[in-house]
Amino acid sequence: MGLHRTDLAMEANASHGQGELPGVQVQQEDFGAVGRTTVRILDQRGAQALGRPCGQYVTLTCDQFAKPDTSLRQALSARLAQALVGMLPGAGDVLVVGLGNRRVTPDALGPRVVDDILVTRHLRDAVPPALQGRLRAVSAIAPGVLGITGMETAEMIRSVVGHVRPVAVVAVDSLAARESDRICCTIQITDTGISPGSGVGNHRLGLNRDTLGVPVVAVGVPMVVYAATIAHDALELLIQDLRLEDGDHQQALDALVSRVVSQRLGDLVVTPRDVDALLEHMAAILATGINAALQPHLDQWEIPQLMQ
Amino acid sequence: MGLHRTDLAMEANASHGQGELPGVQVQQEDFGAVGRTTVRILDQRGAQALGRPCGQYVTLTCDQFAKPDTSLRQALSARLAQALVGMLPGAGDVLVVGLGNRRVTPDALGPRVVDDILVTRHLRDAVPPALQGRLRAVSAIAPGVLGITGMETAEMIRSVVGHVRPVAVVAVDSLAARESDRICCTIQITDTGISPGSGVGNHRLGLNRDTLGVPVVAVGVPMVVYAATIAHDALELLIQDLRLEDGDHQQALDALVSRVVSQRLGDLVVTPRDVDALLEHMAAILATGINAALQPHLDQWEIPQLMQ
Amino acid sequence: MGLHRTDLAMEANASHGQGELPGVQVQQEDFGAVGRTTVRILDQRGAQALGRPCGQYVTLTCDQFAKPDTSLRQALSARLAQALVGMLPGAGDVLVVGLGNRRVTPDALGPRVVDDILVTRHLRDAVPPALQGRLRAVSAIAPGVLGITGMETAEMIRSVVGHVRPVAVVAVDSLAARESDRICCTIQITDTGISPGSGVGNHRLGLNRDTLGVPVVAVGVPMVVYAATIAHDALELLIQDLRLEDGDHQQALDALVSRVVSQRLGDLVVTPRDVDALLEHMAAILATGINAALQPHLDQWEIPQLMQ
Amino acid sequence: MGLHRTDLAMEANASHGQGELPGVQVQQEDFGAVGRTTVRILDQRGAQALGRPCGQYVTLTCDQFAKPDTSLRQALSARLAQALVGMLPGAGDVLVVGLGNRRVTPDALGPRVVDDILVTRHLRDAVPPALQGRLRAVSAIAPGVLGITGMETAEMIRSVVGHVRPVAVVAVDSLAARESDRICCTIQITDTGISPGSGVGNHRLGLNRDTLGVPVVAVGVPMVVYAATIAHDALELLIQDLRLEDGDHQQALDALVSRVVSQRLGDLVVTPRDVDALLEHMAAILATGINAALQPHLDQWEIPQLMQ
Repeated sequence: MGLHRTDLAMEANASHGQGELPGVQVQQEDFGAVGRTTVRILDQRGAQALGRPCGQYVTLTCDQFAKPDTSLRQALSARLAQALVGMLPGAGDVLVVGLGNRRVTPDALGPRVVDDILVTRHLRDAVPPALQGRLRAVSAIAPGVLGITGMETAEMIRSVVGHVRPVAVVAVDSLAARESDRICCTIQITDTGISPGSGVGNHRLGLNRDTLGVPVVAVGVPMVVYAATIAHDALELLIQDLRLEDGDHQQALDALVSRVVSQRLGDLVVTPRDVDALLEHMAAILATGINAALQPHLDQWEIPQLMQ
Repeated sequence: MGLHRTDLAMEANASHGQGELPGVQVQQEDFGAVGRTTVRILDQRGAQALGRPCGQYVTLTCDQFAKPDTSLRQALSARLAQALVGMLPGAGDVLVVGLGNRRVTPDALGPRVVDDILVTRHLRDAVPPALQGRLRAVSAIAPGVLGITGMETAEMIRSVVGHVRPVAVVAVDSLAARESDRICCTIQITDTGISPGSGVGNHRLGLNRDTLGVPVVAVGVPMVVYAATIAHDALELLIQDLRLEDGDHQQALDALVSRVVSQRLGDLVVTPRDVDALLEHMAAILATGINAALQPHLDQWEIPQLMQ
Repeated sequence: MGLHRTDLAMEANASHGQGELPGVQVQQEDFGAVGRTTVRILDQRGAQALGRPCGQYVTLTCDQFAKPDTSLRQALSARLAQALVGMLPGAGDVLVVGLGNRRVTPDALGPRVVDDILVTRHLRDAVPPALQGRLRAVSAIAPGVLGITGMETAEMIRSVVGHVRPVAVVAVDSLAARESDRICCTIQITDTGISPGSGVGNHRLGLNRDTLGVPVVAVGVPMVVYAATIAHDALELLIQDLRLEDGDHQQALDALVSRVVSQRLGDLVVTPRDVDALLEHMAAILATGINAALQPHLDQWEIPQLMQ
Repeated sequence: MGLHRTDLAMEANASHGQGELPGVQVQQEDFGAVGRTTVRILDQRGAQALGRPCGQYVTLTCDQFAKPDTSLRQALSARLAQALVGMLPGAGDVLVVGLGNRRVTPDALGPRVVDDILVTRHLRDAVPPALQGRLRAVSAIAPGVLGITGMETAEMIRSVVGHVRPVAVVAVDSLAARESDRICCTIQITDTGISPGSGVGNHRLGLNRDTLGVPVVAVGVPMVVYAATIAHDALELLIQDLRLEDGDHQQALDALVSRVVSQRLGDLVVTPRDVDALLEHMAAILATGINAALQPHLDQWEIPQLMQ
């Protein structure tokens, strides 16, 4: 992933200061402990300004990590479900794709969510009578990453989509954030899918309506900040503070940033110490929200009952 | 899987007693701690007698569980590599498929082996100079099971094969054995692929040249015996011992077997207590053997060096 | 563990038929999906008849495996908490001990429960104001097993008890049951602690008031049946059915049982295929129940909030 | 742990520049891919200058992460064994202690090493004839961390030492390094034990001859750098480059460093993305080295054979 990449539309917008950009609508709401920022990129002016495609970007935030089984977790799941319902077709098969590498903790969010998705597509002809007419067909796959499979992830998903023929795809991924205080405290949902080159897993091809032929809703959670980003930010803050603005200094700074960043911090990531536990909590929140969105005709207590 | 299913050709053959069957060739060899039984089913007579398709079945056995990093492990890996080389085309892309469910320990062998396969297909245009001309293109996938993905495993593999276009598939699976002393002590390699309905994971469609269009070599290790099999065997032994052969008794027995077996032992499996550790050891043996077979131009010490 | 060992007092009592034993009181109640059997062994006659020490044995049962986050789980947790409150002193430090081997799935229940216990003893001088006077001091340890540590588990616990000086110990352990339909569907709570030689982990020394100097409440869940038990039971059923009661047959049978059982089934255990998932569910139920019993002054939603 | 803490004696010495310090001896050697720095702190002058107790500090370094089963791994294990043999008594019981939290990946090194230690103390009266007179008594424990157990780790180890009465303790721990390029590439072995407050797990009491009454050899591997350290270093580099040395600027800088570091980077750590895999490799290297040092009368291939 690029060094300066901003993965959250909310962050991109914030970096433009207070004034609203042309072609961009922003709405901010608070629901107790959960905040919601909705960024709508309406046209090419907005797309260029924020460096991402036209569409809707909902970002849910909270101030603390979600602990097990709390009201905060329920609130996040419910808001996630609400956002998904607003972006997905109301009926038809859905395929949930968990991107990332199961064996690299901060990149394992997608596969872990897939583990807890209520999968129903295979029941088609064997739905128990009590559930008849109430189950939406859902399938799920965690395709792995290029270095593990030797196959382009997007190609593999394309062939699965060709086989399953869903009306929409929900793609879950770990993100690299710009700000360290976003880690594990933020969920971004967007109807624009996943752009090429984004994400911790660095997928070369995008996953979106253009590449898959069906709408793709992406759900992402920042799990890391690259160490290089942290160093870069520290240096930029310093530059501002010292008001070093003449050209000479700036050049020295740029060189220094490159040196520190590329030579010493290459592939290092910054995570909370207890990222293993936070990953589990976040995966549970996402799976609960996605299951609720995809199975509106099931009562909440029925979903865990039906899990294998 | 069926109750009386015999997963090892070697067992099937043994159950026919000493005399050789028409249409079947059997060869038994000993290499120190490792034994090798090669069963060749030559024609339809043999196929019917043993209840499996024509082809070659190599079974490697040892008397004790393989411990970490021992000469026994190396011997098993080397014999596995040898058997695979004899069954696979000498060049061209190979796809390794790990069948089974990663979250059910005795069914996780396939996915665990895939984790340790040296995957090279994606390096095509980026092979380091020192390796030029020495790497065979290998890709790998653990597609999950129907209940987790909602998709027929065989269908999913078919679409991946359509995309990757390998010259052969190596499919790794956990088996259910007939004899408890086969568990984790036996590796079966066959060029007939995987038949419908076999294996712990109970795949509905087969994986073989007919369904995939390319040769499929299956590598399987018995990880469980069904509890019902154990009970059934105990009862049969008793019948033999008591020489209860008149019809009345036999009927009572059959009824009893059905009752015990179906009502009380349904989905229970018999495993060694330390199946978690044995699975890790067996996965390492299989991955080492498969990597050696697929990369004959690499020195043994180079393969771990190249792993991600 | 001994072959014929019965780990549940309920099973031991049931095997004596309908009539009540002298020195034993049995009470059976139903609470919807959860059943509760309370066996009180009042004196030596009862202790001899049931082969276990005087004291109270509460067994909670349900007909199906507990799925994630369901009302059945909540009911089991609540009944467990109730039983514990009845057996533990009302105040003072409590030490929770998780017995078993974390790396052997069916033996990992104790360590997994300990992972989810709310530990508070170290907060003594740093309790947040909002919790002042509401936290009971709890510590927890998973001491491992003899083969992993080289130390007698009971000795290690004794030295920890000498250091922590709790008023009571709660010891959690995996059990081997007599009946396969008890696996993962039963919780036994007893104020007699753990007897020498019981349990999957086969602890040589007991954990009880005699050895530790403080009351020990044991919480156990059957996670396996030994394969030998299954075979033995199948044979006994057969004997009954065939009414083979003359001496000759009986002798042949006994010999057969020994042969089948000791030669072929030694260390094999019978478990459900999805024991990994069931273990997680059961660990969550136990931890929730134990936390609720030990922290009666906390609201239910506060406990997860306080977990690390 | 303190922000500026340097965990490696080698780093502490290096930060003093080229000249040798009084009371300190430093020796540097190269063995192919493995480098070895031996720092001997001879007296109080040296102890003060380097901020750590008198004793011997051996640091093994390599330029790349160790991959599975390579000659580099074997070289590191062998050098580790050699250093341990030089610091431990030649005979008598040894207790291996794995410090840290098994559920926090970068802090799990100690517990993971303990999993792979050959434990023999419990065999005392049951040593197989072929091993008689060749086994040193070894026990092992992973005591957990304060937040998980509610007990001071050092207190718990003290009571275990009182029970086991070893002649020496080997304590394994994850460290936080000063330099990001030390992560997973460095092993430090010291006969001074573990000082209070050091390590990722932040143990309040030290583990050394003073607190335990027997020699303590500590084996540590840097698994993280605190994010704050990275930011701090970036800023210091910048200061040097810009030659901002007058007082005003320096004050502004100090304030900035504090602000960036304490408000935004609190508990964040920097690790390689694939720390899960690196942890496994490093645990295997350490366990192999420790086993070899403690069992010099066993051939190398016998040790894995004897593992449970």
